[in-house]
Amino acid sequence: MGATGQFAGAADGAGLKAAIAPDLARIEQAMQTDLATLTGDMAALLNEVLHYGLFNGGKRIRPLLTVLCYRLCGGSEVKSTVDIYRLAMAFEYLHCATLFHDDVIDQALTRRGRPAVNVAYGETAAILAGDFLHARSMLLVGRGGGIQALEIFCGATTAMVDGEFLQLHNASRYNLAEEDYSAVIMGKTARLIGATCEIGALVAGADTAAQQTLRDYGLQLGCAFQIIDDLLDYLGDEARTGKSVGNDFREGKMTLPLIIAMTRAEEKDRERLLAMLASGDERKDGFVEACTLIARYDGFAVARHKAEAMIDEALAQLYGFDQAAVQQERAVLEALASYVLNRNK
Amino acid sequence: MGATGQFAGAADGAGLKAAIAPDLARIEQAMQTDLATLTGDMAALLNEVLHYGLFNGGKRIRPLLTVLCYRLCGGSEVKSTVDIYRLAMAFEYLHCATLFHDDVIDQALTRRGRPAVNVAYGETAAILAGDFLHARSMLLVGRGGGIQALEIFCGATTAMVDGEFLQLHNASRYNLAEEDYSAVIMGKTARLIGATCEIGALVAGADTAAQQTLRDYGLQLGCAFQIIDDLLDYLGDEARTGKSVGNDFREGKMTLPLIIAMTRAEEKDRERLLAMLASGDERKDGFVEACTLIARYDGFAVARHKAEAMIDEALAQLYGFDQAAVQQERAVLEALASYVLNRNK
Repeated sequence: MGATGQFAGAADGAGLKAAIAPDLARIEQAMQTDLATLTGDMAALLNEVLHYGLFNGGKRIRPLLTVLCYRLCGGSEVKSTVDIYRLAMAFEYLHCATLFHDDVIDQALTRRGRPAVNVAYGETAAILAGDFLHARSMLLVGRGGGIQALEIFCGATTAMVDGEFLQLHNASRYNLAEEDYSAVIMGKTARLIGATCEIGALVAGADTAAQQTLRDYGLQLGCAFQIIDDLLDYLGDEARTGKSVGNDFREGKMTLPLIIAMTRAEEKDRERLLAMLASGDERKDGFVEACTLIARYDGFAVARHKAEAMIDEALAQLYGFDQAAVQQERAVLEALASYVLNRNK
Repeated sequence: MGATGQFAGAADGAGLKAAIAPDLARIEQAMQTDLATLTGDMAALLNEVLHYGLFNGGKRIRPLLTVLCYRLCGGSEVKSTVDIYRLAMAFEYLHCATLFHDDVIDQALTRRGRPAVNVAYGETAAILAGDFLHARSMLLVGRGGGIQALEIFCGATTAMVDGEFLQLHNASRYNLAEEDYSAVIMGKTARLIGATCEIGALVAGADTAAQQTLRDYGLQLGCAFQIIDDLLDYLGDEARTGKSVGNDFREGKMTLPLIIAMTRAEEKDRERLLAMLASGDERKDGFVEACTLIARYDGFAVARHKAEAMIDEALAQLYGFDQAAVQQERAVLEALASYVLNRNK
């Protein structure tokens, strides 16, 4: 999820952007304050790396979800002792820790249009700064949300690693089923987004049912987000996304459109896709041909339809929150769900 | 700190080894049980990597210290709801997570005589498995020790990263002062060992004074351990340590013996050491000459003396624990301190 400016392009983008601006500013402020507090005890270089990696135009969707779900469940600054922004930023810390480590693993050169941390400061700094944010995020969640929040948060973190390992295991398994793909995106992406929503509800004092409802909202949102992300890797407009298309296919990575096509294709076309996948050279040259084959079996359309069904499911979780006082929060959570479907970068 | 068998070589080694064997077995069992519990939800490859990285002959000093300090402060299995072994293993998890990441950073080939995790399973697996253990260790500490234990644990973890960054910053600073070195080893090594002891006391219900006393025991022990480790890099018997000597000097790493020599040396000898450090080639060839110069200014003797003073200080922290019921624990903590000084590998 790119820069906040992107919301301006969504259906009711300008309204959404205005609605979330105050919360985003508070989240940003909480992070700046936290780093400033740490500075005294901390190596100057670590502080510099953290600033570089944390303040780079990230949209802060995860902490925003925590804050919104907190208020949706009746949490308010007036009556609470929880500093919800300070708790919420833990999700951005963990997310950034993951990005630092992922960029080392993928030997990525850039992140959001700038040299990635591993390039700007080296792999050692990227690994260690990720570890720092990891530990600090756990502490912030434990402090702000107690042991129950920590359980949810750590469960999501270990699920994330588990999802990455599943993905490792799935590499060059070209007969992947949709369930294998679902397990990976659930772990890699959706569990943390589910946890942001669940913990927001938890610290607001919501009952278990409401916590689970908002967790489900987050899980569906997260899965849909990842499916759309994988679709954009085939169908994105490079001028808008700023990323070249076809990377997943060239790397032989089995995402949903390809899995669907492989499952539905006639013998001949399936063999052709398999041959392309198995030969690294053909994978590199055959992207357009692969797209044609995937489209022939509605791989893109069916994948998009699945994402739409998930967003419907996410929206359905919000129905019960019908108190007049929280309709602004509900509208923003609905708009975020629509944004996931309609983003084009 | 190598395999448990090494205790047999210490002064009263056989007795120490026998005394700690039951606790070590329980710690090992707790780790095995924890991984077995996780297996169902977890990628098989992740489980395999964790087993490989965790069960490799580590001495489990950190969890052992937690257990010993817990009992020293009156903690007992009979009257407590805390599973102290389950809490204690978190320290081994965190320690191993650090080793996985360090070995990626250093591109290490072996660890305790076997291919390092990054070699056996690749860098991706090593980074991710480290992240998994990191998150799980935080959860175990939060569960077993509550938020206060989590504060101590996360504080030690972020200090560890901070110490590594200080070390990065200090690379090729050949005018390092003893304080710079102390700050690095305090963060990198001692803080976590202090935390193991402090948390053991905390969960036993000890008062703040006792928690701080045992924290100080751990800090002194940890610093002395690191000084001896750095001394062995100059003076160790390769046949015993299984590691070649001279690595630190060849890498231009400023450890205590060299810092002391640089501070005390006459102009001519200081210039000579500086010239060797500044020229990569001379660093590689000049190890024996460097040892002679360091010895001329008592760099080794003074460093050892400092470690001895720290161990005296560590032992002094134990004086107050004079109840008859805990003399076995106290004796083991004393023997561990002596072992740190007398180890030769």
